[in-house]
Amino acid sequence: MRLPQFGTRLRRVVMNPSPAAFAPLPAFSTGSAVRQAARQGDLSGHTVGLAPGRVQANLVILPRDWAYDFLLFCQRNPRPCPLLAVGDTGNPTLPTLGADLDVRTDLPRYRVWRGGALVDEPTDIRALWQNDWVSFALGCSFSFEQALLAAGLPLRHLACGDNVAMYRTNLPTMAGGRFGGPLVVSMRPMTPAAAIRAVQITSRFPAVHGAPVHWGDPTTIGIADLACPDYGDPVEILPGEVPMFWACGVTPQAALLAARPPIAITHAPGHMLVTDLYNEHLAAF
Amino acid sequence: MRLPQFGTRLRRVVMNPSPAAFAPLPAFSTGSAVRQAARQGDLSGHTVGLAPGRVQANLVILPRDWAYDFLLFCQRNPRPCPLLAVGDTGNPTLPTLGADLDVRTDLPRYRVWRGGALVDEPTDIRALWQNDWVSFALGCSFSFEQALLAAGLPLRHLACGDNVAMYRTNLPTMAGGRFGGPLVVSMRPMTPAAAIRAVQITSRFPAVHGAPVHWGDPTTIGIADLACPDYGDPVEILPGEVPMFWACGVTPQAALLAARPPIAITHAPGHMLVTDLYNEHLAAF
Repeated sequence: MRLPQFGTRLRRVVMNPSPAAFAPLPAFSTGSAVRQAARQGDLSGHTVGLAPGRVQANLVILPRDWAYDFLLFCQRNPRPCPLLAVGDTGNPTLPTLGADLDVRTDLPRYRVWRGGALVDEPTDIRALWQNDWVSFALGCSFSFEQALLAAGLPLRHLACGDNVAMYRTNLPTMAGGRFGGPLVVSMRPMTPAAAIRAVQITSRFPAVHGAPVHWGDPTTIGIADLACPDYGDPVEILPGEVPMFWACGVTPQAALLAARPPIAITHAPGHMLVTDLYNEHLAAF
Repeated sequence: MRLPQFGTRLRRVVMNPSPAAFAPLPAFSTGSAVRQAARQGDLSGHTVGLAPGRVQANLVILPRDWAYDFLLFCQRNPRPCPLLAVGDTGNPTLPTLGADLDVRTDLPRYRVWRGGALVDEPTDIRALWQNDWVSFALGCSFSFEQALLAAGLPLRHLACGDNVAMYRTNLPTMAGGRFGGPLVVSMRPMTPAAAIRAVQITSRFPAVHGAPVHWGDPTTIGIADLACPDYGDPVEILPGEVPMFWACGVTPQAALLAARPPIAITHAPGHMLVTDLYNEHLAAF
């Protein structure tokens, strides 16, 4: 199953993979500023590069009747589905991620799914919100990529202005109620030395996918051709580099669509929930 | 609120804090062997020291109607409530912890709670089991204590054959539905050098409470007198030692009793669910 329009290009949104790319922009230096702009209708574009250093999260909203299964699925698959926060039923706030945070208004753009089909991409979901809805914020690889860049490890997809390459694998997730399906991974080519350093660095961040799940031969995990990613953009692998694979947040999105709940809301790709947490807050040690 | 009979002495069960205490015993060298003995009625005593090196877990069983709140409470409070596995509704197996594992028979002794009151301590719950029950296995400090001992750090309560000293704090947990209440901590006195090493070692094991939550002045976290623990046994603090505090698995037990669900099953203190996992499997890095 292919996520419709998931491969939205981020090309030229991030052109500079150096830490300088995370220098503050005047208008959006904090998560609160980004959320307020989205809330007031002043921001409907990507959040890539905004609120430098702050945690950006994937959003999933489901009716309470489906929330237990999703929570169970995330508990059983913490690498692809690292939960940062779960809202109280009917309550659109997530106070641990931002004091004024309202998931109905604070993302630049949403996707509305009915029975697994994309039906709308609004910039506000206040009119849709129901008092039995539960919101889930999940960690995203933006956070560990910042830690890799800060350590001087180059990330080619960012240098090229591309989305990271993502692949369905033959590794199953552990089903949680109505949610299941294959693990989806993201891939970043690295030299052996960089790969070792990347294992160390991403191990510190289990809340945003943590350590890699595989490296080397892609066929071992059911990937036939690295040049043909299932989501995102292909990336060149240079001589002497090895592909490194991390569990990816598309896993729960794919599980969500396959389960076909009557209604679900997610962030639109690249239009994330920007929180007040610093990425470094998520370091486990 | 005091957990009835929680302070069951383990004195003389573990008299030797050296790694030799974890040398295999002939009859119970594996989790499977312990569980089989419990299942057949050949073991109704403590599991302390049995199946050396294997993960021993806290057990909580709740009706599905209460399971969402408990899962949410655990997600929001991972340090005191580190979930190792959650069963499917009505299914008494936990296959990720042991291929043949059956939570109805495989613990030496259970506690049955009705409306928050202890009503029975059976050795088998097959006759009670309902098809809407959900079982939760939570990590226990036995695992990180083994890692501390293996690193040569002395643990005085074990040397004395005592239960670890545990205290209610003034630190709130984050409520999850009907579950909430204060954080309960365990305390181990250590020299500064040992304390620093203990932070490093326990940071590797977030699935069994992870790094300490506090060290030093107990009044900062609402503990008036270290000589009077709320659960377990007091332990001597020698000159030059500092008290080190870890989040404790009594936190969810206390939350469970305070919420007064119509029915709940837990392990009896010290009578744990012994799994096939090695403690080292739980190391995050």
